[in-house]
Formats: sequence, structure tokens, C-alpha cells
Amino acid sequence: MIFCSNCGARVIRKVPAGDDRTRYVCESCATVHYTNPKIVAGCIPVWEGRLLLCRRAIEPRHGLWTLPAGFMEDGESTEQAAARETWEEACARVENLALYGVFSIPQISQVYMMFRASLKTEEFAPGPESLEVKLFEETEIPWDELAFPVVKLTLEKYFRDIRRNNFGIHVEDIIRHPARPR
Amino acid sequence: MIFCSNCGARVIRKVPAGDDRTRYVCESCATVHYTNPKIVAGCIPVWEGRLLLCRRAIEPRHGLWTLPAGFMEDGESTEQAAARETWEEACARVENLALYGVFSIPQISQVYMMFRASLKTEEFAPGPESLEVKLFEETEIPWDELAFPVVKLTLEKYFRDIRRNNFGIHVEDIIRHPARPR
Repeated sequence: MIFCSNCGARVIRKVPAGDDRTRYVCESCATVHYTNPKIVAGCIPVWEGRLLLCRRAIEPRHGLWTLPAGFMEDGESTEQAAARETWEEACARVENLALYGVFSIPQISQVYMMFRASLKTEEFAPGPESLEVKLFEETEIPWDELAFPVVKLTLEKYFRDIRRNNFGIHVEDIIRHPARPR
Repeated sequence: MIFCSNCGARVIRKVPAGDDRTRYVCESCATVHYTNPKIVAGCIPVWEGRLLLCRRAIEPRHGLWTLPAGFMEDGESTEQAAARETWEEACARVENLALYGVFSIPQISQVYMMFRASLKTEEFAPGPESLEVKLFEETEIPWDELAFPVVKLTLEKYFRDIRRNNFGIHVEDIIRHPARPR
């Protein structure tokens, strides 16, 4: 942010009166511009015990596999966002969504909300952001070609929970270490 | 948003190429300005069976009672945000946070994440945004003076779950009806 979205003047970084954090502040019109974490909503889409993954057609992590997920939009519920992203990235309709993971990633100010879900039918296809969409047995999961740590974490938890037949809701933080940018 | 925060030119509302939603777009520097829902994180702080509520010193709903909650900040986890808000609004330290409610309010693009929590000590006091902070037995809850529907919903669920001694995680949408602005 360089300019004030309210009046067009240049903003500065400072701690506003009565606040304790540095914000973008417009000294021309006195607007404080807050920024907040974003929610990334997604699904673990299941069909007859297999999981639907998408191979990314976009950066970052072009060519790597992910669960369908993306930024929640204004006016949606978390569940609607997760279903919409599954439709957009995998052209697949899901039902019976159940919250499965709430993963905060403070370093990039994102909160992932992942839902277990059933595919309504066996129909799916790559959306514009996917190169390929495919159902995987556990033994076929491309563990070394997953796009993000949160995807690996979600899949690991899912297969562990499947074995115990006990799905809770996992609330965890993912701390990225500077030495390991992935 | 009136001006582009990147180049200072006036923005317009349009559907960018390849998108299906109206966005703020700068035709001068080609920046698309996305807006996304905000997370409001908060606690149900408990001390010996009583719940800590805050009476609001700010608008909206000045003078009404609420659970300590507020906008999650960049760089935090959801749990850290909930604990910080409890500290800021009620000068109270909490521990043993457990996610209790994920309530989407699509109409105002907010997602509440409410945590059950224990007060570490019986110390609390009004922060700058509170007029008064007080522990309530169930029978003392000021049901007709609660600030927001999400607070009422959270408290109702909490006391029902207390009676069954069974706390799940509640994932629900709160749909506001235009005829009932509250």
C-alpha cells in the first residue's frame, strides 16, 4: 500500500494513537488502513475411499499436487467457499461437508479451513487453475510432489484418522522456519 | 475504496478478465484489489463455572454485553488472537483454549472463531473498549442486553452443552434477515 484508497494521498507507516501496532495511515484524511489474515477454504473430496487432488496450473508451486482450496470471498460462508473452490479447481460437486482442520499460518497471515466432503458423482475435470485432477488411493498419494506443507499435514492427519475411524477437528498452527522456506 | 493503493489513480468496479466477480480494479496500473472476509476471534472465559462478559464502551452496541472478541491481526494464530482480545478487552489471561464455534456471517463477511478458555486467575478489569467486566452465572446472563446475535448463539450453545457435558465444535452460518437488522 502506497496511496490512501480513500483520498489518494501517500500513506505512511506508524502506530496510530491508542493503538499498539504499526499500520498504514493516511495523515491527509486520517484513515487507518487495517490488514487482516485471509481464510483459505478447501475440501478433502472423497469418492469410494479415494481422494481428489489437483495438479496446479498456476504459480506458486506450478505442477505440484494440492487439495482444492482458495481464498474465501466476501458474502460466503466457509463451507460455501470450500465447495466453490472444489468446483472451480476440480469441476467437482461436493456434499456432506464437515470441518476437519483449522490451520493458522501466522507467518503469511492465512488460516486454512479444510472440510471433509463427499463427491456427489464421479465427475471431475481440471478447472482453469489445474493441469490435472485425479482420484488417489492412499498408496498412490504423490507425497514428494505436494504443493504446500498444509496439504501434506491435512492428508497425513486424514489417513491416520481413517485408520482409527475417528475424525475430530484439528486446530493447529503451522510455523514456517526461515531456513525451510517450503 | 476510491483510489488505487498502488498508484493513486481512481479505481472502478468491474469483473476482471478471467474472473466472475465484480472487483475494485485500477485501469491505470492494472491492479485488482481483492477484499476478503475477516476473522473475529474471541473467548468464552470461564472461572469456577461463571463466564466473563464485557460491557461495550464503543459503538456499535455501546453499553451492551459481549464476549471478548475482535479482529484477528496479521501474524497471529486464531488462538493467539482470541487470547489477545480477552487481554485487551477484559485485562484477563486465559489458558486451555479449545475451539468451540466457527460462525460465518456472510452478510457482513465475517467469520467468528470462538474458543472456550479458562481464566488463569480471578483477575480482570475493563480494558479501553469496555465499560465493565463481570463474571456471570447462567441465571445472571443479561440475555436482553447482549450486543450481537453471535454472542447469544454462543452462550445458548455453551449452556446447553454444559448440561450434557459434551462440547463439540459448532460450525454454523448466521443469516441476518433484512427485516431484523439485529
